[in-house]
Amino acid sequence: MRAEAALVASAFAVYDSFGFEPLQTPAFEYADALGKFLPDEDRPNVGVFALQDDDEQWLSLRYDLTAPLARYVAENYDGIPKPFRRYQAGSVFRNEKPGPGRFREFTQCDADTVGAGGAVADAEMIMVAAEVARAAGLGDDQYAVRVNNRKLLDGILEASGVANTEEGAMQRLQVLRAIDKLDRLGEDGVEALLGEGREDESGDYTKGAKLNPAGIRAVLGFTTASDPDREVTLATLSGLVGISDRGKAGVDELAEIDRLLTATGFGPERVSFDTSVVRGLGYYTGPVFELELLAEITDRKGRPVRIGSIGGGGRYDDLVSRFRGQAVPATGFSFGVSRFVTALERMDALVAAAQPPVLITVFDRALLPNYFQLASELRAAGIRAEVFTGSGNVTKQLKYADRRGVTLAVLIGSDEAAAGEVTIKDLVLGAEMAKAIETNEEWKSARPAQQTVSRDQAVATIRDMMSE
Amino acid sequence: MRAEAALVASAFAVYDSFGFEPLQTPAFEYADALGKFLPDEDRPNVGVFALQDDDEQWLSLRYDLTAPLARYVAENYDGIPKPFRRYQAGSVFRNEKPGPGRFREFTQCDADTVGAGGAVADAEMIMVAAEVARAAGLGDDQYAVRVNNRKLLDGILEASGVANTEEGAMQRLQVLRAIDKLDRLGEDGVEALLGEGREDESGDYTKGAKLNPAGIRAVLGFTTASDPDREVTLATLSGLVGISDRGKAGVDELAEIDRLLTATGFGPERVSFDTSVVRGLGYYTGPVFELELLAEITDRKGRPVRIGSIGGGGRYDDLVSRFRGQAVPATGFSFGVSRFVTALERMDALVAAAQPPVLITVFDRALLPNYFQLASELRAAGIRAEVFTGSGNVTKQLKYADRRGVTLAVLIGSDEAAAGEVTIKDLVLGAEMAKAIETNEEWKSARPAQQTVSRDQAVATIRDMMSE
Repeated sequence: MRAEAALVASAFAVYDSFGFEPLQTPAFEYADALGKFLPDEDRPNVGVFALQDDDEQWLSLRYDLTAPLARYVAENYDGIPKPFRRYQAGSVFRNEKPGPGRFREFTQCDADTVGAGGAVADAEMIMVAAEVARAAGLGDDQYAVRVNNRKLLDGILEASGVANTEEGAMQRLQVLRAIDKLDRLGEDGVEALLGEGREDESGDYTKGAKLNPAGIRAVLGFTTASDPDREVTLATLSGLVGISDRGKAGVDELAEIDRLLTATGFGPERVSFDTSVVRGLGYYTGPVFELELLAEITDRKGRPVRIGSIGGGGRYDDLVSRFRGQAVPATGFSFGVSRFVTALERMDALVAAAQPPVLITVFDRALLPNYFQLASELRAAGIRAEVFTGSGNVTKQLKYADRRGVTLAVLIGSDEAAAGEVTIKDLVLGAEMAKAIETNEEWKSARPAQQTVSRDQAVATIRDMMSE
Repeated sequence: MRAEAALVASAFAVYDSFGFEPLQTPAFEYADALGKFLPDEDRPNVGVFALQDDDEQWLSLRYDLTAPLARYVAENYDGIPKPFRRYQAGSVFRNEKPGPGRFREFTQCDADTVGAGGAVADAEMIMVAAEVARAAGLGDDQYAVRVNNRKLLDGILEASGVANTEEGAMQRLQVLRAIDKLDRLGEDGVEALLGEGREDESGDYTKGAKLNPAGIRAVLGFTTASDPDREVTLATLSGLVGISDRGKAGVDELAEIDRLLTATGFGPERVSFDTSVVRGLGYYTGPVFELELLAEITDRKGRPVRIGSIGGGGRYDDLVSRFRGQAVPATGFSFGVSRFVTALERMDALVAAAQPPVLITVFDRALLPNYFQLASELRAAGIRAEVFTGSGNVTKQLKYADRRGVTLAVLIGSDEAAAGEVTIKDLVLGAEMAKAIETNEEWKSARPAQQTVSRDQAVATIRDMMSE
């Protein structure tokens, strides 16, 4: 929880620094406003939690923060500055079977620019993603932003005879899904999915995208076209898209992105072009990118191993225009908060948790006012402090301290109170000593696990012991 | 949004300082785990959003953060330290007719101690409430924590012959609701509601609690028994509860709370005893309290006028034991985030909003890399900066700046770029000058609304202009 809150705060600081402003939208949207943009779902409303309100209107819980943003912008179009730049974090809901690392409620953290066409806003979003990774405490060798452009594949498919129609749109989606399986199925598997189809080991048959052989070759050539050097990739892509206007526009956009990234010092170790990047959602129309975290270990080619994508984004120019007659171009970045934190944990890159509180044990209930006073003084000095509020003797209270990860406990009995003293117990040292007690008697007497000081030295002594 | 986030962060810092730890629970709970504790709702599930999942189990969206906490503690009882001290902020949902200041989704921010009987934990919660008010930036004359104890009224009703049965429980709830209307209906109205019942001006009839005349007198005497001096109130209450054990226990708890508050410096201007405090929820069993914000103006008796309660809490010893055979005492504090912020706004006590970003206008698209470089330098210096990502000429861009509340805009044309210079426009000063331009020509020439400086002085100049 603390790590998630810290991550969101870091991301918000990055979003703020780029001039985005916070927005909060409700968890519910009218079902027809949300649309159906969940990945891999052809049936309407599958994957969404929905209910009818008292007016019998269907309400859905948001499945991401982008569709509600599109609704918000469309509804408030005349009243907001354009481009509209907002950031937001909040729960989203998926009515799916939960599994390991797959929850029905999770937190997303997004920044979006609505009302900005052209690659400038995309370049900025890519920078935002890289800066969020850095703000999370990662070194530049521990993450990579990988950028692609939907227009490139569109251009290549156009050149291969895939029409710009409803039917063509379905074919393009099938191609995207096939490419997305490159890691899992290898080139042969993807080749089958681009052509007639493929039967897997269990006998399940997946229909193919039915591209012609030249189209299959072009797509496979495209998905393996990337080079660590962005300029080299751009040159290769220029050749691959040929005379397709859409393809050429895609290359031009990436060239503009490269120019701005290079000028601002975002080198190829932070941001690269990668033609195998797909992004699941159907609504992307231009540049798309993923923020991937990299492990310390390297693969056979010496490149850091991918832990996987923890977020990404891209351009979605048609999402707001669904509500309005006019085109409203938009681009954004989104990441899953738990997923990012889990990855940071795996990478041993989590920031330290909060300091545990000092526990003031209750020796004598008549002395509770004294305990409360000391707790109050510690808090005023910026030290977390807790008077034990449960029931049970000091032994039970010290067990509680242990479970809470408390390192310092304060004991004030009637003798101490009368003498104007407090006893402070170092529980970590005490535990170590308990282990070593038979073999290390001398060390024990030299470094006691508890000390008794005068009451007016209590706060200062505790501060010193904590900083040790 | 920024004010709400700042308020939650302040409250979390207070909760942390008292040794509470963060917890997050899902928005959904199984309907039977939530129970029905919404105020003024006798019918089950009214006021709650519910739906069936794929296994046909009823899920409800949480209506507060306390019932889910009770479920969480019951479910994880053996694995958590006790007392269990957690804080949480999150959306809660009420399926009610929305109205002014009344939303179907809103954010609550809570701290609770579960597994702590006795008034010590209650005293701590009351301190937490007062400290949250202070952390929100309020002076000690701008808020008051008002404390009551359910046991007092229980004792008085017991002495008046209200039985400790199911039927008696309903009667006690009717009495609480009647007292809660004291401000609106006055003593006569409440007297009628405590007795046979009351017809209002519209002809609606509310059934009364049917207390006997002595009982009515005792309750009315009780609700007006408070004095600004906590000791005086305690003495009065001792007399009122008579020989009732429950009533005497209630007075003893308040006396213990007074003792700890006094020792820790929480004087009567911050925390008072107030027998008119009710708290709507039916699950409270002991001390209850409200955090009220006070306006600058005073009433006829010279006391600050109440803006109203923005939060509160109390002891609820039966909520967790519903799930478990054994008693699990608990106490907590909760406030509504928007409601608190709205009150702070009315009191002119809101903390300053974020600094607006510097807008770097796009004069010449060929210079975009320069614009991005400057933005990056500003961010590195801790200054929010935004390159205009929309379309339109500089006039349109400055209109955008105005709508965003931007105070400084940077202009770099090809002339400036060639000369290694940037022009920085003070938009606030510029607007003032535009108004004064005919009457104040000299001032204009003396304090220009824009200045041109060399590129390497840009960040320092902008920093100086911002701090002016």
